Amino acid sequence: MPAEQISELRKGNRLALSRILSQIEAGTAKGDQALEALFPYTGQAHKIGITGPPGSGKSTLVNALARQLRTLESHPKVAIIAVDPTSPFTGGAILGDRVRMQDLQGDKGIFIRSMASRGALGGLASQTEMLSQAFDAAGYEYIIIETVGAGQSEVDIVNLAHTTIVVDVPGMGDDIQSIKAGILEIADILVVNKADHLGADQSVKHLQTMIAMGYRGLRYAGGKHRLSETMPQKQDEPEPSGWIPPVLKTIAFDGTGVDKLAEEVVKHGKHLKETGLWAEKAESAITETLRKLMISTLYKRWRQTIPEEELENIVNQVLERTLHPHQAIQQLLSYNKNTTH
Amino acid sequence: MPAEQISELRKGNRLALSRILSQIEAGTAKGDQALEALFPYTGQAHKIGITGPPGSGKSTLVNALARQLRTLESHPKVAIIAVDPTSPFTGGAILGDRVRMQDLQGDKGIFIRSMASRGALGGLASQTEMLSQAFDAAGYEYIIIETVGAGQSEVDIVNLAHTTIVVDVPGMGDDIQSIKAGILEIADILVVNKADHLGADQSVKHLQTMIAMGYRGLRYAGGKHRLSETMPQKQDEPEPSGWIPPVLKTIAFDGTGVDKLAEEVVKHGKHLKETGLWAEKAESAITETLRKLMISTLYKRWRQTIPEEELENIVNQVLERTLHPHQAIQQLLSYNKNTTH
Repeated sequence: MPAEQISELRKGNRLALSRILSQIEAGTAKGDQALEALFPYTGQAHKIGITGPPGSGKSTLVNALARQLRTLESHPKVAIIAVDPTSPFTGGAILGDRVRMQDLQGDKGIFIRSMASRGALGGLASQTEMLSQAFDAAGYEYIIIETVGAGQSEVDIVNLAHTTIVVDVPGMGDDIQSIKAGILEIADILVVNKADHLGADQSVKHLQTMIAMGYRGLRYAGGKHRLSETMPQKQDEPEPSGWIPPVLKTIAFDGTGVDKLAEEVVKHGKHLKETGLWAEKAESAITETLRKLMISTLYKRWRQTIPEEELENIVNQVLERTLHPHQAIQQLLSYNKNTTH
Repeated sequence: MPAEQISELRKGNRLALSRILSQIEAGTAKGDQALEALFPYTGQAHKIGITGPPGSGKSTLVNALARQLRTLESHPKVAIIAVDPTSPFTGGAILGDRVRMQDLQGDKGIFIRSMASRGALGGLASQTEMLSQAFDAAGYEYIIIETVGAGQSEVDIVNLAHTTIVVDVPGMGDDIQSIKAGILEIADILVVNKADHLGADQSVKHLQTMIAMGYRGLRYAGGKHRLSETMPQKQDEPEPSGWIPPVLKTIAFDGTGVDKLAEEVVKHGKHLKETGLWAEKAESAITETLRKLMISTLYKRWRQTIPEEELENIVNQVLERTLHPHQAIQQLLSYNKNTTH
């Protein structure tokens, strides 16, 4: 990655940015080099995660929010990363960015990028993080990360954000409600979109009750402990952040309530900085990045020490139930020790 | 884990089984010992994964399917593992097994277990696999793994199964359709439940068209390649299995169509064995188990070599952007080398 391209990206050249994003997404050596060169300039952007069930009008809301954030005094640049983790097999992102681009055309301060989920090396969450680093270094003050659904992978993705918005629509029924309890805890701002539909006030009330009941507080629990286990641990005693998630009503289609949403986003960013949670989040993200890199590096190193034949032999013994997986690991590790030292 | 308890489990003692399941789920040393002792007896059960959107009536369908499988000539024992990955934070499984137990009470050949997702070490998919090993060793011929939703984590869970059933309901709307394309590829059997509702035939037709269009065939691509990368890779040239997923209509509530569903499950099991895909799946599962165990072992070993202070120091340098993550990994690894040899 020539220094010139990095400098062009830093100056606001959209084509240079677009090319670097493609390299990063493809996982090329150039992409890695770019990330390395851009790293010193990262850590500035306010990342906003948005999730919610299909049909809640997220995309329209995201576009409206982006336009609204553009009207802030500093005229910040806004990036949108649209991720669709529900389609792990079909190549290419379902959310069509071309249509959405048209909707936002003319504003060179907004940049939309859809993420193809196929073959996302190291998982979607990590790839989203890499793309947002490029936007961050390119001076985008707000990065909106939009994802479909409300499962674990969506939670992983939006957890990278500083501010998480959970979008709901009126009257999704009782069965859908059960999903909310889980996702509610990651929400910093709740939005009932399509607020002109029947049951909007009821949905708002329901969400407010859930919040009052205490579905909250597990989120910012620091990151220092996370390198101590392969899998991130849940914290049992979270520190309450003092932020009570507001429940807002919007009609994304005509922009109703979107000004208030942008306001709350800005307010939440300030809250994070004032309470030190912004810095905590940054540390947690770096620790997680290092953990993943370390795992991948250690595994690759080990893998190179074992001949294919030996590995196959051991897999077959486990298949025949003559060797237990734990014994297999011990054998594979001792092989490693015997040959490399 | 005393040998006696293992022997009781093997003899069909439900209490012994239940205790071992709890130990496994809690990740205790006893649980590990039990898994190790049970391992030689595993590899027999036919694992069935069921997924689909909330509100599709999966739980009722699973109960009905379990009862139907019990009427097969061999009177097989049937286990149900209910997983709810959509609630990563709220402890305890949402799907209440007590209510469902009542529904099935009196039949000692059916065993239901709900899985709490909180703190599932190594992820839900791996924990589900461990529980099903206990059922497998306990002589349960069919293990039904039921999960809510249709995201990546659900795909990971049902991918452990030999036969994957995707449940849909009539008239979920166009927005939901977009999810189907992704999940359709993992389906061996498609079910339109609540077939007495409006639009059932249309849903069946839609699914049949999707299948005819070729959303199929990525599933059984062997497992040998998977140890070569930290993250499982997608295969570009899958071998077609020759199985065309049937689209069935059921009304789980009154049992309509469930006999046909059970028939197709049995038929699919035979198909897998005849084509060698059963063995391929087994190899793939073992390889994946070894990969995960190896990653966790390597990481724990490395982690023990680094003093907390040194780690914190390096994390701080990355936080201050004076060190790039890749450089940090190199430093952490060289520290390791310098001190241990």
